[in-house]
Amino acid sequence: MARINSCYTKLASGYLFPEIARRTRIWSAAHPGAEILKLGIGNTTEALPEVLVNAMKAKLDKLSCRDTYTGYGDEQGDTPLREALRDFYKEHYGVTLEADEFFVSDGAKSDAANIQNLFSEDCVVAVQDPAYPVYVDSNVVGGRSSGFENGAYKDLVYLKGDSSNGFVPEPPKEKVDIIYLCFPNNPTGAVATKEQLKAFVDYARANRAVIIFDAAYVSYIEDPELPRTIYEIEGAKECAIEINSFSKNAGFTGVRLGWSVVPHALVCEDGEPDQLHKMWNRRQCTFFNGASNIAQAGGLAALSGEGFAACQELVDYYKGNARIIREGLESVGLECFGGKNSPYIWARCPEGYSSWEFFDFLLDRCHVVVTPGAGFGAAGEGYVRVSSYGHRENVIMAVESIKEGLKK
Amino acid sequence: MARINSCYTKLASGYLFPEIARRTRIWSAAHPGAEILKLGIGNTTEALPEVLVNAMKAKLDKLSCRDTYTGYGDEQGDTPLREALRDFYKEHYGVTLEADEFFVSDGAKSDAANIQNLFSEDCVVAVQDPAYPVYVDSNVVGGRSSGFENGAYKDLVYLKGDSSNGFVPEPPKEKVDIIYLCFPNNPTGAVATKEQLKAFVDYARANRAVIIFDAAYVSYIEDPELPRTIYEIEGAKECAIEINSFSKNAGFTGVRLGWSVVPHALVCEDGEPDQLHKMWNRRQCTFFNGASNIAQAGGLAALSGEGFAACQELVDYYKGNARIIREGLESVGLECFGGKNSPYIWARCPEGYSSWEFFDFLLDRCHVVVTPGAGFGAAGEGYVRVSSYGHRENVIMAVESIKEGLKK
Repeated sequence: MARINSCYTKLASGYLFPEIARRTRIWSAAHPGAEILKLGIGNTTEALPEVLVNAMKAKLDKLSCRDTYTGYGDEQGDTPLREALRDFYKEHYGVTLEADEFFVSDGAKSDAANIQNLFSEDCVVAVQDPAYPVYVDSNVVGGRSSGFENGAYKDLVYLKGDSSNGFVPEPPKEKVDIIYLCFPNNPTGAVATKEQLKAFVDYARANRAVIIFDAAYVSYIEDPELPRTIYEIEGAKECAIEINSFSKNAGFTGVRLGWSVVPHALVCEDGEPDQLHKMWNRRQCTFFNGASNIAQAGGLAALSGEGFAACQELVDYYKGNARIIREGLESVGLECFGGKNSPYIWARCPEGYSSWEFFDFLLDRCHVVVTPGAGFGAAGEGYVRVSSYGHRENVIMAVESIKEGLKK
Repeated sequence: MARINSCYTKLASGYLFPEIARRTRIWSAAHPGAEILKLGIGNTTEALPEVLVNAMKAKLDKLSCRDTYTGYGDEQGDTPLREALRDFYKEHYGVTLEADEFFVSDGAKSDAANIQNLFSEDCVVAVQDPAYPVYVDSNVVGGRSSGFENGAYKDLVYLKGDSSNGFVPEPPKEKVDIIYLCFPNNPTGAVATKEQLKAFVDYARANRAVIIFDAAYVSYIEDPELPRTIYEIEGAKECAIEINSFSKNAGFTGVRLGWSVVPHALVCEDGEPDQLHKMWNRRQCTFFNGASNIAQAGGLAALSGEGFAACQELVDYYKGNARIIREGLESVGLECFGGKNSPYIWARCPEGYSSWEFFDFLLDRCHVVVTPGAGFGAAGEGYVRVSSYGHRENVIMAVESIKEGLKK
């Protein structure tokens, strides 16, 4: 008799975004005709840059001709794209990596969820609190928690962010084996300084832990002092994997393309050099068949001079939205974090509201969907995440609607 | 200190296709200028049908306009595509399923590898021998084998195919929990009859096992008596998951698109109805962010009347190749299986050759790359898989070259 993986039964509840979609659907059904303004999911809304579209169409033209058609690509990604990523890191970040240290994927979410599979079930995992739910949920499915209790998963170590530390926690006091970090942070918009990130790298080297660094929002950093890849920190190649994406700069949320960096120098236990690089390579060759070649053609264009400039225009548009949101919310007395160097505004709920209550209030009163902070972990309680992804006119309407609703 | 998932160390050796690529590279480097004819990987070579390309370009046009741009889709796939799959099964196979029983993915390989994650580590897994390596390797990584010994993974049950059963094994004698089946089979080209498949469904129902049915090659079936989905067999919805792909009919090997069917009626243990459907839904929502929306637009077109006809033309082309290969190899005395209702020809090696030796012989003497049968399991020893994916002129050249080489 087949038996299920009981780890799934330990997952506390529905995944956050489907739950938001469910509540929104119910509200919509009860209020036919009412327009809802969505600042919930970090879902891009603006047109793909023309230069990327043209590159993808050119790829389709190649695929529609037998002499230039190609089938399966390398599981790790097309060599020109991996080389372009290497060159991009060198040019934009001053960081030297090898092309084969880049593994192209169908997006950061897949990599963020799958990377835990490289590690033993008894590894102790630390996550920021609040955090993107995928780090936690994938590790629960991976067997690294014995269950959910009092709003937290047992056996996980939560690195609490709050207003006192600007949502950048310090490294754990206890020994942990794997640490998930995300800067610019989803959901709080916080960005670690080089010094703060160095503390984590030093911790990881001292404790031989591995850092999983989610850098999906680096394009939003404008402060030149802030690190845009963890490999700007000395020693990070020995202890860190970096995950990144074309979603939030090139608008590829639906097109699907990302990458991970697994350096040759990264080891754990007393393994040989190249240990984790080889394992991830094997994992990708067995469980994955490469990202869409059309998406990869678009990604390659996004790293070119012209493509990069077009992507930065997109990023600047969303950053303009972020400013409007932050200023609007602050004008009615909501305390805000993030929204600078980040597409997310992390707003404290008014006195007396839990984050789901404030979610329901904003949906019902202002017809605006945000994301309840509690969905990102216990430390997210009392906050909501407001996303800057939206048409400018809708963002303005949403902000005005929230201002109106809160004045009443 | 981070520790690795030790299951990776139990994997016997490099994944088959990278190993073939490695030997081919070495040979090429030693023989500069020599042209190699590749009938190894089942990699499509013909142009994408125009109707699919146009649908994908139309999607790109939508993405390049802010009013029609869309970002993240549903993790389970676009509703119109899931509905089109439902309608396709009804129209072409006479099988009734619900649209939400279809989960769109980035390809059958990902699903075939990931599906085992739904089941407990102590489930006993049966695989056909020979078999597509992903079923075995993913289960080794999933902790269902204690190691490789004497050419086989311990704890797995191998259902041996050979010339006496036409490479369609019978259900296991012992109790197993999960059974992987692939018909038309990769690598042997064998296709189970309805009666043979019914024996497996009956076994699964009697033993409350779950069948993972890989149907990636059903488009190649021309015999109307042969089942093209496991759901043609009564009771299969209670015990079977089906995995399928747009790779081998629409030429989407590089574009990446597939689907899995997880019926509501499927249960295991003493679970509630919908148990595995809900689990797979949760798995996909946590570990995956949907297939590329461009690929999905192409997939939708492939299921339309015009698209389906264009895809069948592609399939017919490869089937023409398969006939040429089979007839050519038989003409020089090689015993062949498959190549009818299937793109793969499974050829017995000449007396005295192991399958890797015959691989090396064909590479060195005929400049033809095939796939050594031993790479698909111990029962594949003594055979090679010859793929019909190639330009017609190259297939003819390769067959002539093999005929020439074997005459010497």
